[in-house]
Amino acid sequence: MSKALPKRSENYSEWYNEIVKRADLAENSAVRGCMVIKPYGFAIWEKMQRALDDMFKATGHQNAYFPLFVPKSFLEKEEEHAEGFAKECAVVTHYRLKSDGEGGLMVDPNAKLEEELIIRPTSETVIWNAYKGWIQSWRDLPILVNQWANVVRWEMRTRIFLRTAEFLWQEGHTAHATEQEAIEETETMLGVYADFAENWMALPVVQGIKSPAERFAGAVETYCIEALMQDGKALQSGTSHFLGQNFAKSFDVKFVNKENQLEYAWATSWGVSTRLMGALIMAHSDDNGLVLPPKLAPIQVVIVPIYKSPEDLAKISESVEPIVSELKALGISVKYDDSDNQRSGWKFAEYELRGVPVRLGLGMRDLENGTVEVARRDTLTKESRPLDGIASYISGLLDEIQASIYQRALKFREENTFNVDTWDEFKEQIEKGGFIMAHWDGTAETEEKIKEETKATIRCIPLNAIKEAGRCVYTGKESQGRVVFARAY
Amino acid sequence: MSKALPKRSENYSEWYNEIVKRADLAENSAVRGCMVIKPYGFAIWEKMQRALDDMFKATGHQNAYFPLFVPKSFLEKEEEHAEGFAKECAVVTHYRLKSDGEGGLMVDPNAKLEEELIIRPTSETVIWNAYKGWIQSWRDLPILVNQWANVVRWEMRTRIFLRTAEFLWQEGHTAHATEQEAIEETETMLGVYADFAENWMALPVVQGIKSPAERFAGAVETYCIEALMQDGKALQSGTSHFLGQNFAKSFDVKFVNKENQLEYAWATSWGVSTRLMGALIMAHSDDNGLVLPPKLAPIQVVIVPIYKSPEDLAKISESVEPIVSELKALGISVKYDDSDNQRSGWKFAEYELRGVPVRLGLGMRDLENGTVEVARRDTLTKESRPLDGIASYISGLLDEIQASIYQRALKFREENTFNVDTWDEFKEQIEKGGFIMAHWDGTAETEEKIKEETKATIRCIPLNAIKEAGRCVYTGKESQGRVVFARAY
Repeated sequence: MSKALPKRSENYSEWYNEIVKRADLAENSAVRGCMVIKPYGFAIWEKMQRALDDMFKATGHQNAYFPLFVPKSFLEKEEEHAEGFAKECAVVTHYRLKSDGEGGLMVDPNAKLEEELIIRPTSETVIWNAYKGWIQSWRDLPILVNQWANVVRWEMRTRIFLRTAEFLWQEGHTAHATEQEAIEETETMLGVYADFAENWMALPVVQGIKSPAERFAGAVETYCIEALMQDGKALQSGTSHFLGQNFAKSFDVKFVNKENQLEYAWATSWGVSTRLMGALIMAHSDDNGLVLPPKLAPIQVVIVPIYKSPEDLAKISESVEPIVSELKALGISVKYDDSDNQRSGWKFAEYELRGVPVRLGLGMRDLENGTVEVARRDTLTKESRPLDGIASYISGLLDEIQASIYQRALKFREENTFNVDTWDEFKEQIEKGGFIMAHWDGTAETEEKIKEETKATIRCIPLNAIKEAGRCVYTGKESQGRVVFARAY
Repeated sequence: MSKALPKRSENYSEWYNEIVKRADLAENSAVRGCMVIKPYGFAIWEKMQRALDDMFKATGHQNAYFPLFVPKSFLEKEEEHAEGFAKECAVVTHYRLKSDGEGGLMVDPNAKLEEELIIRPTSETVIWNAYKGWIQSWRDLPILVNQWANVVRWEMRTRIFLRTAEFLWQEGHTAHATEQEAIEETETMLGVYADFAENWMALPVVQGIKSPAERFAGAVETYCIEALMQDGKALQSGTSHFLGQNFAKSFDVKFVNKENQLEYAWATSWGVSTRLMGALIMAHSDDNGLVLPPKLAPIQVVIVPIYKSPEDLAKISESVEPIVSELKALGISVKYDDSDNQRSGWKFAEYELRGVPVRLGLGMRDLENGTVEVARRDTLTKESRPLDGIASYISGLLDEIQASIYQRALKFREENTFNVDTWDEFKEQIEKGGFIMAHWDGTAETEEKIKEETKATIRCIPLNAIKEAGRCVYTGKESQGRVVFARAY
């Protein structure tokens, strides 16, 4: 804790890396691009998982598990999908090692697989191959299944949480009898993601549709939620795909509909990943370290005793005990740190770094006065409060912090969202960062040229876009509404 | 539902396969040896996970996540470990596919990995490589970490849940400052597994130590829990390993102890897997299908209306509504199946097949009499009960069923555990099945010969073994106590 964190304003990227490291969230492993998620980081991910899983179940979904391995021939079946993922596939070619005769191991050339297996980069192919056996009649539909799994995409430039070769995610895969129902499912799940982002992660998001160039490989339509990070770059935080009948056709999944005719099933898939951990860190944290919304904080309240003698500590501990019980009874996760290996100042800084939303400091003078010092992580403010009734005060305070972190992020996004109408302005603003709302002529050519010249991509066509005639910021051609441009993670 | 299940007594193996299939638990996938765990099966696994995870956390453990990939050189570092796993490793050799020029995909020869990556068969090596960075001083110890993950062991003969190439499991990996503490941890976790098996799975287990030949590759001592299936074969249901300093030495993990001296850390690892699903099915189910202990049943109570007209159904539904609410308020998972696509007889058989512990049948005559038919899955008995107070009756009944299933399995094991003192008797009994308690001279040679001649292995040396001088059942040499022999899954 001796060295200060790099400042966001000076080196945002280094600031991010240091928070990940010093808050003990994750680290790079010996395998290129693969991370180790450490216990404190994983505890946050577990809270995310639990909340999302409850929301999936509340919307009628069940969990299942499908194999890690995708036969190469499966990937070939849906052309766009194959093209989209072929270049980043980890490929299993052998199933045995043997002694190399020099004390080491080598791949056994006699154990070559007849057909190579890909580590799933996503599971549409494996799952639709299974669905073929599950779906015969409209009575078998809908199938509303999700899986929590690890996936591998062999990325060349990796960054902890944001882009890793292996990552953890959930992938929902649903099958429906009608196009309309599948589209509704796609939109429902986008709504679930937006709800989770805003109400759990305290992260305001723009809901929208991807341009064709940014669509998921194999999708008819990709919906997404996009969030703005503090450095002015966008982060795609979740996607929900309407897959039409593409995978049903590739895997020959037909059902007898109510009119007794054979028809291909309609599909959706949707996912969020450990990337959300990156979004969480980058959206809220400050130059003192991690800032966590209370709903996702593994420790919501830490209590630190301030004392000189063991006798003082004993007295403080005695007063703390009922507070701990009361907080726990309110469902609040609390840690009383009476360890004697560090001074209270060191502890304060440590819990600040780890983003614990509320810190209570309790010294002998507090005991005498019947008070306690309450420190808020989000605002870094402190106040002295009566010990009496402190638990219910804190319960309310945690709600207030949750709301306040969201409001701050929302304000930041609003202040960094710009209507831009000229190309010069666009080039200037994109260097400064933020969401740029600009007209686009709707062509892939223009999108590509803008990307080449500015590194900005169309993040989405917002669902709530106002219909507004205008001229494309790049070509001057006609446009029916603004889309969101930004540089992105 | 037309065809009856095969009977256990006629074809146990086929009976098992059919239950897995018809109760909709899992199925084979297109990838050899890999299974798809279907929603109903996965819901049982989720209940197991939740219970175990709570127990791990209650004993001070935290979850984390480590990479799927093990560099080949890591596996080489611990000799016995390498030897134990090398022959069943799925090996990633390339990281990209490319077009084969004929519309398909091929492995890109230019994307060969410098060092091959193994899909983890277990994670000791990857984790101890990470621990090297986590452990400097005795203050960093103990590290009490668990991960829920998929692992791959390329088995030649596979069987759903019991032996699959990919399976799901948890693996705990702990590091300690002293040998004593590590041994205590190993034993504590064995106790957690035994507790889970007995109190959640209703599965009586023998706790014991493996013979050196059956030890985990790289362990100093392997503890296990062994259960007896209804066909008289044993099933290893969980293992807890004391790893000594083997992995610390292989990965050079030293710490400064309290005496300020450098020392290697002490290790344990412990795991249970989706194999437990196989144990659960085989221990309790009968010729009518799955029998689930209530604590692990996704649906604990199903209510089936028996009616002729929509008006009758409406009346029944009206009476059912408060029962459903009351059951839910007691934390009981209940399903009211008022679907009109099947007759009630079909539904009865279906829920029997799926092992729902309690079925309530409600017809018009019941309404008139203020009664309800209560059917127990475990005993297949029915009784008419007053509707009044039915929820609390069922709550007690579920506890009774949980206890009763355990008692039945315990009685079965007791009746199928035999003290055997002669080799002829041994050979005869092993054909009939069961746990054979016999003296063994303690040598690997004898163990191997017994295995060759009878396919029986030493399941464990029981922790609670009575010290009893005797003569080895095979060689007649001296022995200090009986060990458990059986044929095993």
